[in-house]
Amino acid sequence: MSRPAGDYPAQIARSTNDTRPAEATGPMSAYRPFTASTLIAYLATLPSVKSRLGGEAIDWTAREVSDGNLNTVFIVSGLSGSVCCKQSLPYVRVDPAWAMPLERTLFEARWMQAVSPAIGHQIPELYHLDEGLFLIVMENLATHHVLRHALITGIAPAGFAARIGEFVGHAGYATSWRALPFEDVHAIRDLFSRNLALTRITVDLVLTDPYRSECSRNRWISPDLDDLVTALQEDGTLHSAVERLQERFLANSQSLLHGDLHTGSVMISGDDVRIIDGEFALYGPIGFDLGMFLANLVMNAYAQPEHEDWMRDEIALFWSSFRHAYLERWETGTGRGDMGSLTGSAASAAERKRFLQQVMHDSAGFAGLELVRRTIGFAQVADYEAARDRESEIEARRRALITGRSLIQKAFQIDTIEALLEHI
Amino acid sequence: MSRPAGDYPAQIARSTNDTRPAEATGPMSAYRPFTASTLIAYLATLPSVKSRLGGEAIDWTAREVSDGNLNTVFIVSGLSGSVCCKQSLPYVRVDPAWAMPLERTLFEARWMQAVSPAIGHQIPELYHLDEGLFLIVMENLATHHVLRHALITGIAPAGFAARIGEFVGHAGYATSWRALPFEDVHAIRDLFSRNLALTRITVDLVLTDPYRSECSRNRWISPDLDDLVTALQEDGTLHSAVERLQERFLANSQSLLHGDLHTGSVMISGDDVRIIDGEFALYGPIGFDLGMFLANLVMNAYAQPEHEDWMRDEIALFWSSFRHAYLERWETGTGRGDMGSLTGSAASAAERKRFLQQVMHDSAGFAGLELVRRTIGFAQVADYEAARDRESEIEARRRALITGRSLIQKAFQIDTIEALLEHI
Repeated sequence: MSRPAGDYPAQIARSTNDTRPAEATGPMSAYRPFTASTLIAYLATLPSVKSRLGGEAIDWTAREVSDGNLNTVFIVSGLSGSVCCKQSLPYVRVDPAWAMPLERTLFEARWMQAVSPAIGHQIPELYHLDEGLFLIVMENLATHHVLRHALITGIAPAGFAARIGEFVGHAGYATSWRALPFEDVHAIRDLFSRNLALTRITVDLVLTDPYRSECSRNRWISPDLDDLVTALQEDGTLHSAVERLQERFLANSQSLLHGDLHTGSVMISGDDVRIIDGEFALYGPIGFDLGMFLANLVMNAYAQPEHEDWMRDEIALFWSSFRHAYLERWETGTGRGDMGSLTGSAASAAERKRFLQQVMHDSAGFAGLELVRRTIGFAQVADYEAARDRESEIEARRRALITGRSLIQKAFQIDTIEALLEHI
Repeated sequence: MSRPAGDYPAQIARSTNDTRPAEATGPMSAYRPFTASTLIAYLATLPSVKSRLGGEAIDWTAREVSDGNLNTVFIVSGLSGSVCCKQSLPYVRVDPAWAMPLERTLFEARWMQAVSPAIGHQIPELYHLDEGLFLIVMENLATHHVLRHALITGIAPAGFAARIGEFVGHAGYATSWRALPFEDVHAIRDLFSRNLALTRITVDLVLTDPYRSECSRNRWISPDLDDLVTALQEDGTLHSAVERLQERFLANSQSLLHGDLHTGSVMISGDDVRIIDGEFALYGPIGFDLGMFLANLVMNAYAQPEHEDWMRDEIALFWSSFRHAYLERWETGTGRGDMGSLTGSAASAAERKRFLQQVMHDSAGFAGLELVRRTIGFAQVADYEAARDRESEIEARRRALITGRSLIQKAFQIDTIEALLEHI
């Protein structure tokens, strides 16, 4: 009767016992926010990092490249190599009055450890984690560009979305109830279930705030968007549709999500595509990652209409790559999970279709939420600034709000990628 | 931005921090299985229990009344009162070769603490918990009968199911994402997510084993049921339908469930109805508790056809009481949850209908699984032994298998209690 818990991912199972990730974990230090020079002094105490950089500390340079909203990031270069260092601050970097627990870096490291067996080199390599300093030392993607900037400047290679769809498919399957005995899923889910501060951000900023007129964190071009914002905030039917997505996000533990998969969480260099910034990771519906990502492609297309055909192709490719990657793992029958234990890889075509439809429903709905919140919420996207002029920007933002609202309302009737593209 | 975690239920939130339930927790002792006399000696060291029993240890009597499959249970009586003591054994009581972690008693105590704010006196009062001895000391329900026996003997009062439906509705709402901020749900869910040994029993015995021909734990009257058993075990379409329910059970964290709500988990004395034996508690779909319970009423009706009209009435009452209790809490708008934060108590009639339909789908499906597993699985029900003769018993069991299969296959088309009753 008693079935032993599985062994995947071993380092995560261990980390749920001792609460510390097992790999790449160094001595625990007292927290202090680094500057370029204090960081170099610290790295000089780590033999593996020292040999990677080459030479002595005197030969190294550290450059702050903080770009996201939350953390400080340094690139440290030595004689023979470089590393990327990411440290949590006790507040939001772009808003120091907003206190924020330091632990988010630990969740990012745990996410890297949890998905790396499934997705290989599609994330940066983790070299070192200091849980006391809330510091990650990882592979420096020196030749990579942030995908969002590569899209805005038009230098991203066509077909980039394939690798990102694959990533979601492989990570989604590998952490599902089909792949893992429930004991393993519980262990990983519980670990990320403590990621309260960042999950609270998602719940508030994505799932709630944009639909509340009394929320002071919203901001939009007024009076040009006033009519659409009012419609979003006064439509009870829409609010019911948002609630169905709140339920899907909160109550449906389908797979381990990245949790913040927008075009700023992807680094790209030719064919090499890496997913970064997993600190929002938690269990939830796969369509949350899929919908958020594709919505960011839609906003780029709206802001830069010359990208529209390209982005539609990327969205179709993104979905088909996800679909292929997930089904490939399912059909090879390596799952040890309790879900699907009766049919395994012999699941019927009808079951696969049902699964994909459900993921598409979620994707459509969460894409709608992302379009709305990135257009009138607290954290917006730089793509809009690439619009030709103010009028074009307003037009792009209006399209995003109209499409977003439509996707939220019709999510559960959108069964295929073709149907989704018709709405965009 | 940072929203403080709510304060409900305070004792559970505390217990997730220190891993020990805060209420009724005494000193931790080294584990030893009690006999009647060693138990009395132990209770004499507890002032609150001593004063409840009255007199001195010499005046007390202890009587073993173990009835369930797993634990030992004693009733200890003194001069002025009595208590019920439940202790885990390191194996399954009815099958000592089957090892079983002791911690199940702790989960039962935590379940009592988690639901008691919502359901008041519908569970026994918890007097004392010793986490080292894995011992619960609780209210002795001296005048109560186990509902299953009261049904078989026909002494249960008409209308008993109302209080049980209310219980599921109140506990289900109070632990939902509508009632609690997600931080509180995560804390409670994670606590019960560690209930691995008993969840493994449910996953295997309810959701998997009966559909696998190679499972030696199944047993049935052969050759009379062979045709139906073979049909259950060779029908790929049915297995896909079972998998949808595996997914609902594993991946859908709707509310804190009792997890084993059959007629043996209910004690009844006139109008006083108590739910006991919450050691299987975990987060899952409310329809799991509802479906399991109503399936046990169906089996009683099949085994004792003279109860059929009565049981149909009780099933309808059970559902309407659940529905009323859940909606009453929803509509009074006391929810502090993140789900429904936009509409609160003003949720649309369409949303309420959608919610109830989804719960009914789950209820129908899990009722089907329960009918099958209690008829051919490892843990069967005593009701069948109350059938008039062997032929009647076989007929009852055949009806249960046919109805069970039909409910599993059609679960997601069964929208109302009337539709459910048509299938029974």
